[in-house]
Amino acid sequence: MNPPVVILANPQMAENIGAAARVMANFDLTELRLVAPRDGWPQERAFVNAAGADWVLTEARIFTSVAEAIADLNVTLATTARTRETQLPILSPRDGAARLLGAASQGWRCGVLFGAERAGLETSDIALTQGIITMPVGQRFRSLNLAQAVAICSYEWAMAREGPPPPRARIDYIPAEQGEMEGLYRHLETELDAAGFFHPPEKRAGMERNLRVALGRAGLTSQEVRTMRGVVTALSKGRGKVLAKLAGKKS
Amino acid sequence: MNPPVVILANPQMAENIGAAARVMANFDLTELRLVAPRDGWPQERAFVNAAGADWVLTEARIFTSVAEAIADLNVTLATTARTRETQLPILSPRDGAARLLGAASQGWRCGVLFGAERAGLETSDIALTQGIITMPVGQRFRSLNLAQAVAICSYEWAMAREGPPPPRARIDYIPAEQGEMEGLYRHLETELDAAGFFHPPEKRAGMERNLRVALGRAGLTSQEVRTMRGVVTALSKGRGKVLAKLAGKKS
Repeated sequence: MNPPVVILANPQMAENIGAAARVMANFDLTELRLVAPRDGWPQERAFVNAAGADWVLTEARIFTSVAEAIADLNVTLATTARTRETQLPILSPRDGAARLLGAASQGWRCGVLFGAERAGLETSDIALTQGIITMPVGQRFRSLNLAQAVAICSYEWAMAREGPPPPRARIDYIPAEQGEMEGLYRHLETELDAAGFFHPPEKRAGMERNLRVALGRAGLTSQEVRTMRGVVTALSKGRGKVLAKLAGKKS
Repeated sequence: MNPPVVILANPQMAENIGAAARVMANFDLTELRLVAPRDGWPQERAFVNAAGADWVLTEARIFTSVAEAIADLNVTLATTARTRETQLPILSPRDGAARLLGAASQGWRCGVLFGAERAGLETSDIALTQGIITMPVGQRFRSLNLAQAVAICSYEWAMAREGPPPPRARIDYIPAEQGEMEGLYRHLETELDAAGFFHPPEKRAGMERNLRVALGRAGLTSQEVRTMRGVVTALSKGRGKVLAKLAGKKS
């Protein structure tokens, strides 16, 4: 069973990358992915803070976008305090770990996505995931360090893995990899754009995001993704045919 | 309901003290106690790492020994990876939080004790507590950062506090404060020493520790502590009286 991948989007501080690697290693997480770290990669200060968990850092992979970094994952959960902006399920770190364990025990590839220290995650990146993990922080002070958030999620993974096995999900299919979903989204958006769907233009980003969230929640299989792309193609090409036919009738 | 006190024994790095304060504040823990911080107190670097949770640091209290730092607490749990050295109950962070919540909900004062970065806790300090919290770390790499350990325990406190209330412990008494227990231990040790109990001398520390663990687990009330001290007094002074009586009979 593969433990979840940890994805850090646009991390600013090398110290935090190292501290994240260190705590991951304690709880047997080993796969780290970095999306455009601010100060480049590799960085000496990360290795200092990893306190010996060097293999997590040396094997870390670098990506230029969140979409690429999660392209081969079946289930990704996003950690964020901003839970009102999407229609994704909202989970505690504990329930998130249970969900990841259930998925991993079926052979699916999973990940947890963390945003940058100050800015957090882009709403458009959250929209690529299948759920939100939010921390039970209080009212007075909400400023959890990035590596601390990684620590709590890693700890909950270890607790879930050590606990009684979760009831086997009654799902006998494998959700598509995120890269397939991205292909579908792009295909759909291109065709919608050609059809003049995104109007007015300033609402485009939000409209695209809402579509991604809705489709992402469906947990489409690869076959279903292909079917959906066929639907998009049929609808868009069909529109031309209908128009041609209408034009032909008129002539 | 008072949240648990966090006690850091001999912390070496001001950065870790600050990071601990920051994560405590996120989960509504506010009372920090420091036992002989290596580089003195206060320290600028701690405030930098606290990222705004200054009140935890400005209100932190300094002590010269763990015994003093926990003297007013009814229940203290020690975090350590070395679980084989005592006969104390061993708890996960989750079960530890449940125990602390159960105690705090009855008005008891609780704390979690953390050792120094490299050395951890002294066995003699662990012996002053009522249980051990140990982390579910893996086999390959075991080097949890001090502030990360504080993070996980603070998080579990928040989860326990937010969860369904624990079944009310069927205990209608209040365990004595640790200072009362210390008084009992010293009293007992002094009298045992006078009686030549600690033999051979090199085993004294271990013998004292075992006594403390055994008595500490009992959860004595203040009244019971007074009773026990009466027992010690009676036994020790009584021995003199018996000797005097025997001597008198002989004469």
